[in-house]
Amino acid sequence: MPENLLSNINNPTDLRQLDEAQLPQVAQELRDFIIDIVSVKEGHLGASLGVIELTIALHYVFNTPDDALIWDVGHQAYGHKILTGRRAIFHTNRQLDGISGFPKRCESIYDAFGVGHSSTSISAALGMAIASNINGDFEKQHIAVIGDASIASGMAFEGLNHAGVTNANLLVILNDNAIGIDPSVGALKNYLTAVKEGKNPRQNNMIKSLNFNYSGPIDGNDIFAVIKELKRLQKIKGPKFLHVITKKGKGLLQAEENQVQYHAPGKFDALTGEIIPKIEENLPPKYQDVFGLTILDLAQKNKRIVGITPAMPTGSSLKFMMDALPDRAFDVGIAEQHAVTLAAGMATQGLIVYCNIYSTFLQRAYDQVIHDVALQKLPVIFCLDRAGLVGEDGATHHGVFDIAYLRCIPNLIIYAPANEIALQNILYTAQLDLELPIAIRYPRGRGIIADWKKEHFGNYQKITIGEANCVKEGSEIAVLSNGTIGNNVSLALEEIENSDQIAHYDFAFVKPLDEKALHEIFKKFKNIITIEDGTVIGGFGSGILEFAAHNNYQNSIKTLGISDKFIEQGTVNQLQQCCGIDVKTLKLLFLSYIN
Amino acid sequence: MPENLLSNINNPTDLRQLDEAQLPQVAQELRDFIIDIVSVKEGHLGASLGVIELTIALHYVFNTPDDALIWDVGHQAYGHKILTGRRAIFHTNRQLDGISGFPKRCESIYDAFGVGHSSTSISAALGMAIASNINGDFEKQHIAVIGDASIASGMAFEGLNHAGVTNANLLVILNDNAIGIDPSVGALKNYLTAVKEGKNPRQNNMIKSLNFNYSGPIDGNDIFAVIKELKRLQKIKGPKFLHVITKKGKGLLQAEENQVQYHAPGKFDALTGEIIPKIEENLPPKYQDVFGLTILDLAQKNKRIVGITPAMPTGSSLKFMMDALPDRAFDVGIAEQHAVTLAAGMATQGLIVYCNIYSTFLQRAYDQVIHDVALQKLPVIFCLDRAGLVGEDGATHHGVFDIAYLRCIPNLIIYAPANEIALQNILYTAQLDLELPIAIRYPRGRGIIADWKKEHFGNYQKITIGEANCVKEGSEIAVLSNGTIGNNVSLALEEIENSDQIAHYDFAFVKPLDEKALHEIFKKFKNIITIEDGTVIGGFGSGILEFAAHNNYQNSIKTLGISDKFIEQGTVNQLQQCCGIDVKTLKLLFLSYIN
Repeated sequence: MPENLLSNINNPTDLRQLDEAQLPQVAQELRDFIIDIVSVKEGHLGASLGVIELTIALHYVFNTPDDALIWDVGHQAYGHKILTGRRAIFHTNRQLDGISGFPKRCESIYDAFGVGHSSTSISAALGMAIASNINGDFEKQHIAVIGDASIASGMAFEGLNHAGVTNANLLVILNDNAIGIDPSVGALKNYLTAVKEGKNPRQNNMIKSLNFNYSGPIDGNDIFAVIKELKRLQKIKGPKFLHVITKKGKGLLQAEENQVQYHAPGKFDALTGEIIPKIEENLPPKYQDVFGLTILDLAQKNKRIVGITPAMPTGSSLKFMMDALPDRAFDVGIAEQHAVTLAAGMATQGLIVYCNIYSTFLQRAYDQVIHDVALQKLPVIFCLDRAGLVGEDGATHHGVFDIAYLRCIPNLIIYAPANEIALQNILYTAQLDLELPIAIRYPRGRGIIADWKKEHFGNYQKITIGEANCVKEGSEIAVLSNGTIGNNVSLALEEIENSDQIAHYDFAFVKPLDEKALHEIFKKFKNIITIEDGTVIGGFGSGILEFAAHNNYQNSIKTLGISDKFIEQGTVNQLQQCCGIDVKTLKLLFLSYIN
Repeated sequence: MPENLLSNINNPTDLRQLDEAQLPQVAQELRDFIIDIVSVKEGHLGASLGVIELTIALHYVFNTPDDALIWDVGHQAYGHKILTGRRAIFHTNRQLDGISGFPKRCESIYDAFGVGHSSTSISAALGMAIASNINGDFEKQHIAVIGDASIASGMAFEGLNHAGVTNANLLVILNDNAIGIDPSVGALKNYLTAVKEGKNPRQNNMIKSLNFNYSGPIDGNDIFAVIKELKRLQKIKGPKFLHVITKKGKGLLQAEENQVQYHAPGKFDALTGEIIPKIEENLPPKYQDVFGLTILDLAQKNKRIVGITPAMPTGSSLKFMMDALPDRAFDVGIAEQHAVTLAAGMATQGLIVYCNIYSTFLQRAYDQVIHDVALQKLPVIFCLDRAGLVGEDGATHHGVFDIAYLRCIPNLIIYAPANEIALQNILYTAQLDLELPIAIRYPRGRGIIADWKKEHFGNYQKITIGEANCVKEGSEIAVLSNGTIGNNVSLALEEIENSDQIAHYDFAFVKPLDEKALHEIFKKFKNIITIEDGTVIGGFGSGILEFAAHNNYQNSIKTLGISDKFIEQGTVNQLQQCCGIDVKTLKLLFLSYIN
């Protein structure tokens, strides 16, 4: 067995000392290293395995970090992290106080730009390239590596459209593996497939039309071919585009064959690749499955119902409906802006549209929510998956701004269910001729009712819009919670022996607020505590403050939620602790009010 | 002189009774009608003149309103409005309680989709077309008319990319006149130009690559040619694309020759086309010119300064810098997402980036502000032009959400200058090695200091970040204003004889708030009034409420601003009245506190 090469590579300079012939061995070791650690520590697997050769070639040919290398989205950057000084701490990936699962500027000088959301790399690299021209540095290279799912997003097109009329030293590498998290969709994908298969007589023209120097497609898993082409391109000035074909999951058979499942497979056997099943007996359902099963059930009963997801059929569980009713459930690709206005267009024709977008990604379609939906009072049903703290994906992915950014929009109902039953009931209620748009926010992960599917699924109850509920009576202090974080309140109160003083209300509706209930509460309780899984600034609690000011109440109000800083990665419970909204901290807080 | 035809056309059915040979006369009359009214009532001129023939042809060939016709942006829809029942009220265009300057669903069944912001038409039309398929209506046509500036925006690409893999009955008409409000830019524009000039051997392929049935380019001002082609396309199923060439301003020589100026020329002589100069002696400067002159001055002194505008060089006055320093000022086209991340990329390389985006359009780049700028603490300087109520452009264009949607973002400084001096000083301060991003919001239109340029321009004073100022002392009531709306407060107070009780503070910084000043204010004044030119929900006032709750103050706080509804068009003063923040209403309010 030859000497291990990877263990001596502490930065790309070390890599560049090696002979080109040694690089396949580095690739094999890097692959094994990633598989060994991710199999135990979990994380994103397939994307990084696919670009091992490309990663090595880029750092081998280019002079990183002086040359700027930007990984779009960043799921594929594990190899990059390991080669750029983070091999020894790679096992802390995605953990609290560990390294981020995505490239991050403050983590390494090799991470030229922080990523997480898709399709930013071309704009960022172009900005750097233009800046280099202004700074008089005409040698510096600026490289964006972007996948075929990401490049189909509008933002990437905007970047290409600008780059093509500049003399910027920009290299866009299209990492074409025909899949994002789910398989890529859209006309551009079909075009790229035709190019790859040599079937398109007009091949390459689309990129050339945007004035790029196009080359490819080449086999991105052939390290020598990639190095050769990168060396050629390195000498060419101006905007360049290299089309490489890779295989997601490359080197682990199961990951190659089940690319969706092995995007982030959880724990698996590093030798056999077999996924280690979680012990899942009698666990409450995922909110995603509550959504997916409910919308399918409702759609089977109502032909006007349609579903939309921008590239998250599996993650959102819209897949259930896409499989059963393919003509009425749409994956539009990474195109949140389009998804929202498409929904608006459908709503004008009387369809009942469930538009499922992760909370953090609805930030991409904020204008469309205001301008195309709310302004026109089109009753689109926004299902904001992964709202609140999402855990290990970290700062780029927490869905904590939505309450604040949606609350200022007129005509929009905002609801956060406290549990699975409330989620299915609001999904049911939303299709009963609601005359306004509604945003339904719910978290990543599991609910609290183990027998939900057996006992509750399909047993729909209409929810009265704007109505709050008393969860627990009390005499002195009122806790007003919004959404599933209310379950932390209940657990904390259960742990307090003498909790008679504390009442708990479920204010699932952020908007409209239940003003009748609020008047009663403000008259009865001197102390009021609000809690939410979103930013304290501008959030649900601020809505309560606005109500109080407007009605001249002078109660003491404490607002709990996400304070004014970006929250990093960790388990949801760890992050709730950081924010003071975990069960333990709430219990101490409540006790301080009693004593 | 022949009988006037236009006066007998009350809807497209009337139009369809005419012989095709009569349509050029209708075109002439429609052009004259628009010129006559817009010359007096003002509004958008050039775009509508350019599509007169296309407008008539569309309503002549297609069965509107059963066939859905969507005008992208809507500047070009005056002819459409006049032919669809609004001829008699067209003179109320853009006025309070008049018709909107843009297509609007609640105004007419012929306005299939409300517009105002660009690049929504393809997504909306596709949504309708897919809905028609689901509804079993396979005859209905869905037409999006989109300009060459708008189609280059990412959202339009997302729509095309999806449409190309559907069997939707969609016709996209590219109205190619090589100009938006300012001349179009970007690689796609160059490609289209080459196509038009017959120079591109690969012509048409870009659209065909997206699986559209492409036809054109044809002369869009040749009504018979357009009708012939529309009739042909009408019979073809699936996604179709028609490329028409038109001339913006067609039929009014000056408008054809000065397309930027005649986009919205103000009053002009209907016969000669000459613009009637406004009497502008000794008026205060436009905030736009304060921005444009100041940034040019600063950039001439500091080589690290660059400027970015997404397609608004004239409107924002970045044009001053673009003309003088073309290598450091960039019009990136209608691409707000790209503009923001480009700015972030530039900032990583040490450039000082002024990214000028209208407040309402920054909604298009909300995610990029959070994810690419604020999260990475990149000190981009956002200049939010046309913040607050914008007047005649109406509900789609008011910049009233920005304070609420920006306030929840960590790391971001938010500032609204009270006047021209404050604007130039914050622009100056922002380039003094600020370590965080800043959003500077200022309104459309003129300031309050007639001799600003002569007396103040260039006399820069550094502003202390986070510091509020006392504008006027008082004893009982404190008015806290943010931005230029504070001038209404001053005017109202000047009109009150005994205003000794009322103090006025300028809280230009929404974030960070001047907590020291707030503590003093909350201790001294029982009654506090906040006022802002933005949504009351989640805005500056809510920030003050949050401060009060956090510090257990029990003062009475009244928050003034834009209430929870969309505000329509009118003069700024009329709209301020609707919102209760005009001078007269404020005076009455203040008096009620005194008496």
